[in-house]
Amino acid sequence: MTQLRIPGPTPCPPEVLKAMAWPMIDHRGPEYKKIIFEVTDKLKQVFQTRNDVLILTCSGTGGLEAAVVNTLSPGDRVLSVSIGAFGDRWANIAREFGAEVVALDIEWGKAADPEAIRQAIMSNPDVSAVMVTHNETSTGVTNDLGTISKVVKESGKLLLVDAISSLSSIDLPVDDWHCDVVVSGSQKGWMVPPGLVMVSISTEAWEAHSKAKMPHFYWDFTKGKSFLEKGQNPWTPAVSVMFALSVSLEMMLKEGLPNIFARHARIGQMTREGIKALGLSLFAEESHASNTVTSVAAPEGLDIKKLRQILQDEHQVVLAGGQQRLDGKIFRIGHLGLVNEDDIKAVISALKVALPKAGFAGVKQ
Amino acid sequence: MTQLRIPGPTPCPPEVLKAMAWPMIDHRGPEYKKIIFEVTDKLKQVFQTRNDVLILTCSGTGGLEAAVVNTLSPGDRVLSVSIGAFGDRWANIAREFGAEVVALDIEWGKAADPEAIRQAIMSNPDVSAVMVTHNETSTGVTNDLGTISKVVKESGKLLLVDAISSLSSIDLPVDDWHCDVVVSGSQKGWMVPPGLVMVSISTEAWEAHSKAKMPHFYWDFTKGKSFLEKGQNPWTPAVSVMFALSVSLEMMLKEGLPNIFARHARIGQMTREGIKALGLSLFAEESHASNTVTSVAAPEGLDIKKLRQILQDEHQVVLAGGQQRLDGKIFRIGHLGLVNEDDIKAVISALKVALPKAGFAGVKQ
Repeated sequence: MTQLRIPGPTPCPPEVLKAMAWPMIDHRGPEYKKIIFEVTDKLKQVFQTRNDVLILTCSGTGGLEAAVVNTLSPGDRVLSVSIGAFGDRWANIAREFGAEVVALDIEWGKAADPEAIRQAIMSNPDVSAVMVTHNETSTGVTNDLGTISKVVKESGKLLLVDAISSLSSIDLPVDDWHCDVVVSGSQKGWMVPPGLVMVSISTEAWEAHSKAKMPHFYWDFTKGKSFLEKGQNPWTPAVSVMFALSVSLEMMLKEGLPNIFARHARIGQMTREGIKALGLSLFAEESHASNTVTSVAAPEGLDIKKLRQILQDEHQVVLAGGQQRLDGKIFRIGHLGLVNEDDIKAVISALKVALPKAGFAGVKQ
Repeated sequence: MTQLRIPGPTPCPPEVLKAMAWPMIDHRGPEYKKIIFEVTDKLKQVFQTRNDVLILTCSGTGGLEAAVVNTLSPGDRVLSVSIGAFGDRWANIAREFGAEVVALDIEWGKAADPEAIRQAIMSNPDVSAVMVTHNETSTGVTNDLGTISKVVKESGKLLLVDAISSLSSIDLPVDDWHCDVVVSGSQKGWMVPPGLVMVSISTEAWEAHSKAKMPHFYWDFTKGKSFLEKGQNPWTPAVSVMFALSVSLEMMLKEGLPNIFARHARIGQMTREGIKALGLSLFAEESHASNTVTSVAAPEGLDIKKLRQILQDEHQVVLAGGQQRLDGKIFRIGHLGLVNEDDIKAVISALKVALPKAGFAGVKQ
């Protein structure tokens, strides 16, 4: 069996895959209505929110675009707190739609310092929103969103959160932390194939939405909400992924959120220790290392492309490489959603054999 | 077994549903690369084109938005030829992104007269593009796109085509008809669950794209093309729907395009005759009645809501109602993708029993 250990799409439980093959139904009929109501209710439990939660048919990037165009106007100044490739992408989306982006770019591998965010807001009191990545998939770093959210909300700014690869795996109490728009994606900790994005929208976000002038149609939150009231999506949704999500949410709530978070923390820790025990170094600063994805710095001599090839061909272990400026410099192990201790043991064992073949002589045995 | 006879999502063959449950894979790995190359090649055969064909993760409406924002600039004048709710929606998308829409609105139930389009272009020589619905799902009308495309291309305008519910079921030779951007959706004649949209882009459309200034990020054709060259999508695609599409395309090419078109023509004809034999009237003008969806005018006394309820509860036949101004005035029978004569017989038989119970006393036996 292949070990798909990339930070999304993630492996799906057999029950979830089975649901993907359910016969098609009318997306405006009674069965779908029942499913979307139940799924939305359970999503709110996982988001830990009473805010509205909408479901969009797209990938995570679509959700990030939706968050921006639904709450901002061209010319708005926004603070982008970027700690990696996905933070940068989000800033580019805001720029594309006419926002003036104040970029607080943190060195890749490190988390954002809440104090630096406070300073940036004080220096730019006219920003209307702050964009923050909860968990940066490209670097394997988790921001201290609890503290950051306090800083942002004390300043009265709108807080937009990319929680695509954290929510459902790492604790993110949306209401307690007063997050205004939070985006997650089905193919991450939710154990569901890609195709759906979930977005929570606070009262303040709805207020911002009512004044937002960036053009949007497909992503429109107002249409999303009005159709949800009748148990539908405005446009034909990825019905099969909804089937799958309905099954996975049941599994998740049965396991219980605290147990899920604890499992991810345990597995994250185990992965980091396993990597260090091999003689490798973590790329992310360990105090903020992610519990959903571990980034590993390539040691002298290691050919990451070759390593990934050997792992795939000889061990059926699929890892991710580095993105953009980290290409060839790190590799990444995804451990979110359907993952247990044995999966990580399999990855570490495979690495032990493959690393020397890929040019790293210093593997500790 | 339920007869899902709405104009999308459509029923899927068992082999296609099975593919939906294949284990997840890396969307940037070798297996996906093989699939996207094969699928793209087969899509081009069905589109009958040598143009680029890109695959987007979204519903049909997302594809219509993509067609607009990738080829137009705010302030551009465009001619919208609308023959129903989906044509109107498309015009609204163009307006939302700043186009000045010249609306040629045709009476619902009728097709657009190519001569009227020629006149509209002559009266508005500064329009840069013409938006045309090939098959209007809301009214059950198919435009004479072959003739319309001649009119549009003689004028040198860009031709954007909504072929969501036609392409793969009704002949649309994209290259022969010089269509610049053509949009279709997986949940229609392709026999695949919703989640993917396919778009073809001509050389002229690429030229327009290079100058287009409407903001776009998620939909960007340039990113789509550059990632396709390496066998990927820019953002995480609906991988499972790609699996399904790879299977359905194989089935479709095995059946053969001429056979598929002939089957839809035969089934369309059979549906219309069956409806008339019941004593009902077609809503669409028969000369342009669609071979993928039949719209039926509600006769005096018929409660369409009740009819659909009875059909669903007592006959497991799911039909669609009318949209917007046609709500309560028509019902629609979808017959695209996975459909054969027996399916239509089942629908007609069920209607024969259900119509009197829903208030229509004039059913012919």
